[in-house]
Amino acid sequence: MSARTQPPWTAPPKHEGVALPPLTLYNSLTRTKTPFIPLDPNGKKITWYCCGPTVYDAGHLGHARNYVTTDIIRRIARDYFGWDVFFVQNVTDVDDKIILRARQQFLFEEYRAANPSINDSVKAFTLEAWKAYVKKNVAAAESTTPSDFVAWVQSNHADLYALIQADEAAKTKTEKDKEEDNQVYLDEKQTKVKMHLRTLLTATSAINSSSTDADAFYAATSSILLPYLDSLPENKTREYSQDIFAKLSTYWENHFNEDMKKLNVLPPTVTTRVSEFIPQNVDFVQKLVEKGLAYPTVDGSVYFDIAEYEKRGHHYAKLEPWNRGNSDLLADGEGALAGNTEAATTETDEAGVLKAKKSPNDFALWKASKQGEPKWPSPWGQGRPGWHIECSVMCSEVLGGRVDIHTGGIDLAFPHHDNELAQSEAYWDDGCCTTSGERHQWINYFLHMGHLSIQGSKMSKSLKNFVSIREALAEGGGWTPRSLRIVFLLGGWKEGVEIGKALITEAKSLEGKLNKFFTNVRAMISEADEKTARNEFVPQPFTSTERDLFAALDKTRAEVHGHLCNSFNTSDTLASLSNLVTTANLYIALPPTTPKSLAPLIEIARWITWLLQVFGLDPNGTKDAIGWTAESADGASSESKEKTLMPYLRALSEFRDEVRDTAMAAMKSPPSDAKALPKQLLGFTDKLRNSTLPPLGVSLDDRDGQAALVKLVDPAVLLAEQREKEEKAAKKAEEKAKRIEAERKAQEEKDKKDSVDPATMFKTDEYEAWDENGLPTKLKGGEELPKSRVKKVEKLYKAQKKAYEGWLARQGKKGDVVA
Amino acid sequence: MSARTQPPWTAPPKHEGVALPPLTLYNSLTRTKTPFIPLDPNGKKITWYCCGPTVYDAGHLGHARNYVTTDIIRRIARDYFGWDVFFVQNVTDVDDKIILRARQQFLFEEYRAANPSINDSVKAFTLEAWKAYVKKNVAAAESTTPSDFVAWVQSNHADLYALIQADEAAKTKTEKDKEEDNQVYLDEKQTKVKMHLRTLLTATSAINSSSTDADAFYAATSSILLPYLDSLPENKTREYSQDIFAKLSTYWENHFNEDMKKLNVLPPTVTTRVSEFIPQNVDFVQKLVEKGLAYPTVDGSVYFDIAEYEKRGHHYAKLEPWNRGNSDLLADGEGALAGNTEAATTETDEAGVLKAKKSPNDFALWKASKQGEPKWPSPWGQGRPGWHIECSVMCSEVLGGRVDIHTGGIDLAFPHHDNELAQSEAYWDDGCCTTSGERHQWINYFLHMGHLSIQGSKMSKSLKNFVSIREALAEGGGWTPRSLRIVFLLGGWKEGVEIGKALITEAKSLEGKLNKFFTNVRAMISEADEKTARNEFVPQPFTSTERDLFAALDKTRAEVHGHLCNSFNTSDTLASLSNLVTTANLYIALPPTTPKSLAPLIEIARWITWLLQVFGLDPNGTKDAIGWTAESADGASSESKEKTLMPYLRALSEFRDEVRDTAMAAMKSPPSDAKALPKQLLGFTDKLRNSTLPPLGVSLDDRDGQAALVKLVDPAVLLAEQREKEEKAAKKAEEKAKRIEAERKAQEEKDKKDSVDPATMFKTDEYEAWDENGLPTKLKGGEELPKSRVKKVEKLYKAQKKAYEGWLARQGKKGDVVA
Repeated sequence: MSARTQPPWTAPPKHEGVALPPLTLYNSLTRTKTPFIPLDPNGKKITWYCCGPTVYDAGHLGHARNYVTTDIIRRIARDYFGWDVFFVQNVTDVDDKIILRARQQFLFEEYRAANPSINDSVKAFTLEAWKAYVKKNVAAAESTTPSDFVAWVQSNHADLYALIQADEAAKTKTEKDKEEDNQVYLDEKQTKVKMHLRTLLTATSAINSSSTDADAFYAATSSILLPYLDSLPENKTREYSQDIFAKLSTYWENHFNEDMKKLNVLPPTVTTRVSEFIPQNVDFVQKLVEKGLAYPTVDGSVYFDIAEYEKRGHHYAKLEPWNRGNSDLLADGEGALAGNTEAATTETDEAGVLKAKKSPNDFALWKASKQGEPKWPSPWGQGRPGWHIECSVMCSEVLGGRVDIHTGGIDLAFPHHDNELAQSEAYWDDGCCTTSGERHQWINYFLHMGHLSIQGSKMSKSLKNFVSIREALAEGGGWTPRSLRIVFLLGGWKEGVEIGKALITEAKSLEGKLNKFFTNVRAMISEADEKTARNEFVPQPFTSTERDLFAALDKTRAEVHGHLCNSFNTSDTLASLSNLVTTANLYIALPPTTPKSLAPLIEIARWITWLLQVFGLDPNGTKDAIGWTAESADGASSESKEKTLMPYLRALSEFRDEVRDTAMAAMKSPPSDAKALPKQLLGFTDKLRNSTLPPLGVSLDDRDGQAALVKLVDPAVLLAEQREKEEKAAKKAEEKAKRIEAERKAQEEKDKKDSVDPATMFKTDEYEAWDENGLPTKLKGGEELPKSRVKKVEKLYKAQKKAYEGWLARQGKKGDVVA
Repeated sequence: MSARTQPPWTAPPKHEGVALPPLTLYNSLTRTKTPFIPLDPNGKKITWYCCGPTVYDAGHLGHARNYVTTDIIRRIARDYFGWDVFFVQNVTDVDDKIILRARQQFLFEEYRAANPSINDSVKAFTLEAWKAYVKKNVAAAESTTPSDFVAWVQSNHADLYALIQADEAAKTKTEKDKEEDNQVYLDEKQTKVKMHLRTLLTATSAINSSSTDADAFYAATSSILLPYLDSLPENKTREYSQDIFAKLSTYWENHFNEDMKKLNVLPPTVTTRVSEFIPQNVDFVQKLVEKGLAYPTVDGSVYFDIAEYEKRGHHYAKLEPWNRGNSDLLADGEGALAGNTEAATTETDEAGVLKAKKSPNDFALWKASKQGEPKWPSPWGQGRPGWHIECSVMCSEVLGGRVDIHTGGIDLAFPHHDNELAQSEAYWDDGCCTTSGERHQWINYFLHMGHLSIQGSKMSKSLKNFVSIREALAEGGGWTPRSLRIVFLLGGWKEGVEIGKALITEAKSLEGKLNKFFTNVRAMISEADEKTARNEFVPQPFTSTERDLFAALDKTRAEVHGHLCNSFNTSDTLASLSNLVTTANLYIALPPTTPKSLAPLIEIARWITWLLQVFGLDPNGTKDAIGWTAESADGASSESKEKTLMPYLRALSEFRDEVRDTAMAAMKSPPSDAKALPKQLLGFTDKLRNSTLPPLGVSLDDRDGQAALVKLVDPAVLLAEQREKEEKAAKKAEEKAKRIEAERKAQEEKDKKDSVDPATMFKTDEYEAWDENGLPTKLKGGEELPKSRVKKVEKLYKAQKKAYEGWLARQGKKGDVVA
């Protein structure tokens, strides 16, 4: 090999033995953790469908739990694992719940408008509503009336009555008092009874009251009036504008989106609304009918044929086979407007069309719309899609016949998701089968979010045991988007979360620990920056101590990677982060004599911040920030606030340090000169005003008897002003010096003149003879001085004598001073 | 299978055939693109050493090119590929350039201070400097004098003279005028001659001028005076304070860091300063000497033995073997203070120590320090490390014997990096070899950043053809951190970049196109938000048009992934992004009659923004932003700054007012108690810390002997902490009060007991007769007191007498105090 060519290079060995674990996901389709393999042959993109909201009311913490948790795992997939996540979520804006709510709301408003004051007729009408509510929901109390209802509840449901009273009292309690209350856990049935009793007690007290306050009356009785108005025969046969349904759903869809934004939930990549996919729904159902897997009935509805589906080798109820035939769940799935969902028949009309569905388990794909229900055209008459088919259609339209991930709340697993799977696998199946011999597999990973429960019961609309998202996030609601998210991160995504004291305390303590760590690191950085700005040398040691701290970070990173690969285990991840912070705090707490480096602290704080940003804990976080931004209305991040404020605060603190140190020293050894300390203090105050603050753009104008005037000014302007002042002062000083010099010179000349002794002043060649005082008597040549000359000489002599005496006096004084 | 158990699930197939390309890097060690395999068996962490700045002057665009480009590829590795990048960069604060600059600067300032006015002696001295400069740099002009120099240049270098004149004229031209100028390209030699001529012409005109403006004169002549002063024999033998070197390097290190911050270059994970690694340098050299791969010479220097190194099977000059023995490069590598670097000998002194290095190619590991050079102790005498060894030591100390990536400017490849490799591979080699049979391989991937050139020549300090980073970014400098980074992204990291019109125009046009796209998408979002706020229904269609647009995004993502895997090809990446924007713009431009969905536009804009953030183009960008934030010098508006700052400034000013007023009062009437004033001051400082600042969220931790640590904390947290402290204090106070009360009571009882006069204490019914002191003599009934009783009574009497006297004394004292 020539010495002028490059030598061989050795490629690093590929590591086969050691490697971090691959991602596994707890898959509802296997009820185990299975390795995650995306469909995309590039392994970059993953497709994801998430069951979105039915928009007819405000979201509560149970919804927050579902969507925030989904958002967390979506963000991890996208920002930690780096996948391009294509996330589709629907809006169910065609649904029995929406129809009912819109119609009831419309009728209620109509009734209120017609009956603005509370009179006997309104009371009588409300009494009928009350009775109907009792009959439907608390059949055992049917014989009671509003006047004896409270007594009836007290004797028949003493415990629940006490709880209802306690709940009312709690409304006026502080957060702290509430925390100290003992929580009572009820089962779902009891929670339901309690809810109905509370509704009736509220209405009862309005009916029994003599008040005519219409607002209060209708607020207390709306829950019993709404279903009653809708049940009246004259309202059943009315025609309603389709607008009332769309208006309601649009309103609540926006409301939901605002809530999600507040909770920092990412918007879906694509949002699909049922109302925008009606023709696709019809086509989808049509294809199932054509395939022989669905059938219409005489009323114009279409049902899915489970028996036929299974006959063809498909499995029905893949997710929760044990719930097959659970009539409560099935009825709930069919919707409140479905009528008797258990009726089944083999009878047909003359055209051979079935009079009802074949099996009680068969579910509606297309629902014939009755009077007062929104409708769209179809081959089977005016109607609307069933709930389950909507998701099959929208997901299939956007993501196609094979999808990586489908998510939703665990309560949707059966029948909603199982029906979705049946419909879609029936639709997409082309007779061929999967590698394991199964029929078409539509969804590869089905992930279900665990529930949020409160006092042991699932939080839900129908149990009225909910706290709305807005209430929770409002002042006094006890939650922030961040604290809520931390609670959900601490719980596993698939586990139930009981919103209880222990979890709340754990979340608060973790948040506080992280906050404190970030603040400390930032304070240390800012201190170092300050030193650097003064051109001081800030040491950056790298010894075994720093090496160990970096090693702790590496270890935590590997641990966290393991946790997140373990079906997105955020709970263990937070524990690892907390341990790392503890280790870093030990480093910070090393004695001041140990030189410390900021480098490992910065890297740890930055990486933790990055991960917290991945988890969605900081909507305003910037790249490479240290710490999350404050959750504040004004939006300014605490980091940027710190950057702005710190130079000023440091000026304040240094000034205070000076005053404090000087005062402490004076306490120890009081100065003998009483003016020494105040002089020193005035030196500090002048330095602050003249040197420290101007470069920061702060001007202080001292004012007699008033506080100094503080101004924020352009530092350049301030410095220019100051320079000008200094120049003026310099000029004035120079002029003064010149004046003094001139005066000195004049005095010098005068002194020279004055210092001549009058006795010698005429001893010149001009004269020849003098008297005893030195006054000339004869001119040179012997001539006598003329008279006029004598006078002149005497005048001069007198003047000089005075000057000379003055000079002598001055000399004497000087002598004194010298002495 | 029971209908109540889950059916089989089919795992998605693993893709073997299709996959995105793996990352390859252009490796200077192979001069080809080689697949990148990290050393970390987990494949998560990569170690990276980057040659940092020698800090003796301001950074220019050539430095910006190097560090910004390195930052771009570091960010891609970290934020696109997701590696944990451990990035180490040194600061060379011990170097010949620093020594020379510090000394020259010191001597120049000294000369100026001694010669504040321009007189004949200064002119004569400068003329000598002028002649020395001519002799050294333009030997051909030696016969000229300042008076005929312009004519000489005009006749001998007419072209260069014209160019110099044009450059001068350009200084007063606008940006636009400059753009219209034709650029002239010179080779490096011409550029150097031009530079020297310009320096001399400037000095000449000052020498020829009759002006006595000292500022102007020294500014024009400093370039010729600096080297001349340093060359004077009397200055060669002087002793200089080591401080002048450290002060200079600290100043320029800070200057460099500020530049990097402005350019949004991430700070290194660990920064190593040569001055903090001197003992490690000595140990490293010592080990090489022990291994027989280095040898000392009589002057106390140590050299690397290339011949011996190669004899042992290593390769010297792996990076640029064709440059072996290039004496210019070698001399440059040895430094300006090295003397004759080509001298070589085999002669030794009587102790067998070589009189000079063995071969002209051998390079210094340790340099003996001469008079006027900084020095540290070593086994070979006072000296300092050589330039190359510094990097070997710091990189080895922090990253060890095997490193993934080493980067630096291409001009460092030989000899600096080749010498680094030789030293480190000699040091770490344990006799074993790599898988391909080679000796120890220290660096796996050596990446060299291409140069920035201007008018055909590399921009460099020594050619004085540079634009400093500050000048470039200043108003009128024509650049912003973003535009500069776009230019570097458009060029390949390893290619040379000629800062010319074409590239600038391309960058500007891309920036404009992206800006426009972001602005459009944001405007559309805001329009939709507006509609939503009015509860209008905003359609979100998903048709084949939207599907196509999403497909274009997917295609671009795969393309970009390919580009970035292709040795970080940012140039092609930007082209792909630009094409995607064109496609998106076509969608935006569809006729208004076609309903459009925001979904694909948002996803495209968000993803592009994310990638631009990865490239470091937006220091203030938040997660999931759409578009970059505006580039402004001081993000915050003055209004918001005022709002933020004023409460804090008010606190500062009020505190100062208190101190000032108190001090002024004390000046007028000095307090008689010397502790009164300091006590008052400590009251102020406590109030500031405990009352004023906490509600503002400012915490001050007083620290003994150190400045207080200032922290910005959530006010609620601070107040809670304070409340807790106060509660504790209150409790303590309460306990103290209780204790005092108990003591008081005990004292009271004691007083009651003690106050009994011993003379009366036995005057009870028990006795009948007493002596003059009141001691009983007879019991009731006349019986004499028994002996034992007498003793007891006397004892009691004595005790009470003492107690009574004590009480009396206490009473007296109390009286005093009261009086």
